[in-house]
Amino acid sequence: MRIEEMAIQAEKAQIKCAVLSTEEKNRALSYIVEALKKNETLICEENQKDMVDFEKAGGALPLLKRLKFQDEKIAATCRGLEDVKKLPDPVGRVIGARLLDEGLELRQVTCPIGLIGMIFESRPDALVQIAGLTLKSGNAVILKGGSEAGRTNRLLSHIIAEASREAGVPEGWIQLAETREDVKEMLSLSEHIDLLIPRGSNEFVRYIMTNTSIPVLGHADGVTHMYVHSSADAEMAVELVDDSKNQYVAVCNALETLLVDGAIAARFIPALAQRMRERGTELRGCPRARSYAEMNEATEEDWRTEYLEAILSVRVVDSLDEAIEHINTYGSGHTDAIVSADAEAAEYFMNMVDSAGVFWNSSTRFADGYRYGLGAEVGISTNKIHARGPVGLDGLCIYKWKLYGQGQKVADYTGPEGRPFLHKDITSDSGQEGV
Amino acid sequence: MRIEEMAIQAEKAQIKCAVLSTEEKNRALSYIVEALKKNETLICEENQKDMVDFEKAGGALPLLKRLKFQDEKIAATCRGLEDVKKLPDPVGRVIGARLLDEGLELRQVTCPIGLIGMIFESRPDALVQIAGLTLKSGNAVILKGGSEAGRTNRLLSHIIAEASREAGVPEGWIQLAETREDVKEMLSLSEHIDLLIPRGSNEFVRYIMTNTSIPVLGHADGVTHMYVHSSADAEMAVELVDDSKNQYVAVCNALETLLVDGAIAARFIPALAQRMRERGTELRGCPRARSYAEMNEATEEDWRTEYLEAILSVRVVDSLDEAIEHINTYGSGHTDAIVSADAEAAEYFMNMVDSAGVFWNSSTRFADGYRYGLGAEVGISTNKIHARGPVGLDGLCIYKWKLYGQGQKVADYTGPEGRPFLHKDITSDSGQEGV
Repeated sequence: MRIEEMAIQAEKAQIKCAVLSTEEKNRALSYIVEALKKNETLICEENQKDMVDFEKAGGALPLLKRLKFQDEKIAATCRGLEDVKKLPDPVGRVIGARLLDEGLELRQVTCPIGLIGMIFESRPDALVQIAGLTLKSGNAVILKGGSEAGRTNRLLSHIIAEASREAGVPEGWIQLAETREDVKEMLSLSEHIDLLIPRGSNEFVRYIMTNTSIPVLGHADGVTHMYVHSSADAEMAVELVDDSKNQYVAVCNALETLLVDGAIAARFIPALAQRMRERGTELRGCPRARSYAEMNEATEEDWRTEYLEAILSVRVVDSLDEAIEHINTYGSGHTDAIVSADAEAAEYFMNMVDSAGVFWNSSTRFADGYRYGLGAEVGISTNKIHARGPVGLDGLCIYKWKLYGQGQKVADYTGPEGRPFLHKDITSDSGQEGV
Repeated sequence: MRIEEMAIQAEKAQIKCAVLSTEEKNRALSYIVEALKKNETLICEENQKDMVDFEKAGGALPLLKRLKFQDEKIAATCRGLEDVKKLPDPVGRVIGARLLDEGLELRQVTCPIGLIGMIFESRPDALVQIAGLTLKSGNAVILKGGSEAGRTNRLLSHIIAEASREAGVPEGWIQLAETREDVKEMLSLSEHIDLLIPRGSNEFVRYIMTNTSIPVLGHADGVTHMYVHSSADAEMAVELVDDSKNQYVAVCNALETLLVDGAIAARFIPALAQRMRERGTELRGCPRARSYAEMNEATEEDWRTEYLEAILSVRVVDSLDEAIEHINTYGSGHTDAIVSADAEAAEYFMNMVDSAGVFWNSSTRFADGYRYGLGAEVGISTNKIHARGPVGLDGLCIYKWKLYGQGQKVADYTGPEGRPFLHKDITSDSGQEGV
């Protein structure tokens, strides 16, 4: 089937998905969990074939590990779907309500976005998780996974489509794209696809953004900073840098650049260098940083780099404003933290740093949908519209304006003799709405 | 100055605009009003020169009227700025707050988007209104108005820049682009410009959308529908169609296509045709509609057309579902209404029609930021992300995640022995935040 036909099918189904009740959507999630468990052997077999082919083709070991979808990974993915079931329904929530006049009530109510195009890396568990989130939010989805997981993805999407159909979800809401040509076609379908969510390398996300007029919820680099203020508790700062940098280096919320206030550098940098040596983490410093401890030289390039490995760049700055300026110049707007005993300095930093996450005395590694309590996340957005930071179910919704009238005409509210509007806020009177 | 330099200046200023207090922003709005009034003569002179040139060049009369910015128009624009002053500050509002653990508090707080690129038609009053909205929301803006208003726009942006600078707003937040080349350069500045808002013809908005990777808050056609349900009060329906179609035909929320349920067609269509004849509005109908009253023939093209004049297409449908299907197929997702005495049918319609505005027993002409009570509007969005329908101050804001800790590390919350998260909602404890 061509992608455009898939999109048209999905769009039609989605209109009906928008009015599924919470119970219907949760029942479908249960059916999917059961079907995954029932088909475990088959899933393992297909996944094994994908893995063998990938190894034969010389695929790298870390990628092979991500490709594996068997046993405990299937169980964990099912637990993930159970968690999505427990999340509150994001659809039909009254954001605001206002009486425009007696008998003329305006409500701003959440609803699904529509048809989502999701393009992700090889991990088959991502397919299941994303399908669960789109189902719960009443959206339809065209999924494009890594081609090395072709057999696994085909089977998983088939199982999900069948189980949800049996649970009463309109057929066609989940579609699988398979080739690069399919992705190209997706990029041209602005009439049908409402939002693209690419997950993968920075270059890949940029490629998507520059080759479509469809809105993209993208995630660029995570060039993450921590600034150690003059008032900081130096011991706390060493611990927070250690956790932010070394707890898991290969992720976007791991620390890349450390900014140290000149007033605390002499006390703090030697202790920091000692800890990083113990961890085997390489330091690259500016000339002033290097005067306090042995470390390699940092170049201009370092300030812009997301290492994703055990390397940390260090720069000494003379003020809070200089730290903010550095972050807003070189950062990627992902997550940036200040270590400080001074609440006013911290608040100033958090207001002036233009990033999705601005943290005070806490590890940058907390920037994550699960840790934030959003439930499963679709991704972490460095966009500055719609959704910013970890994106959960709410990020898959928008709103519509519902106006409830009794025959009111605009002519009666127009001109010098026109009725005035009341514009009375009645938001608190309107609870969760049944859809 | 090149547009990129303007953008860099504006970005720098914007970081500081983000932390302006409500009082500072309102004072700046007052200074601007005073400055506009003080310079009224000069504004009229420059505007007169623009008008004379435009007339000499053979400019059309309706456009000349839009270009005029003198006397009462200046006064009305100043009243508009006073209204923006009265609107609540959209920045620093706590959307949600959650204790991740004792002493580890997460807040989701509204903040400005950053640098907005605004491209609009000739009306100079739009420049002032948009400047007011961007200032109040702590954003910076690059404005590109119609070239025929060149002198007026230059003077107005100069007056606004000077008056706001005197009030303490960081210099550089408002920039004026002037040529088509400038617009082209704006489209390439995805590193600096966070959101583009084009206002103008459908083709123009499409051109912007397909030629930039910057997010665009756009407004496509308003192919607006009204469906007269079998249960409708026929008299109310005639009144509502009349108001929706004829109260002001040249606007996006005016009615274009009327769908009539077969069960009420014989009773309703003759009365409708009578009223439209009185108004001088042309009807174009499907074969069944034409069997109830004299009218021209509608073609497939008519169902997709935004007339913006005194023409109404009429189609008879056999059910609520057929009406919904027609609207979701041919509509533009702007505003669509049902006339019905049946609440269940109305609610079904409002949930299944995928449009920014879904109205029950009320005129489509209510779809407007002022009538909704949002204050001045930036435009009406048919996007399905970020902001939908009339966009006011809230549409110029996004949020950031602020995490307040006491030295917490992710390592302590990880693994089988890890501390569990509390994830306790404390939203109601967090009021409006001082920034």
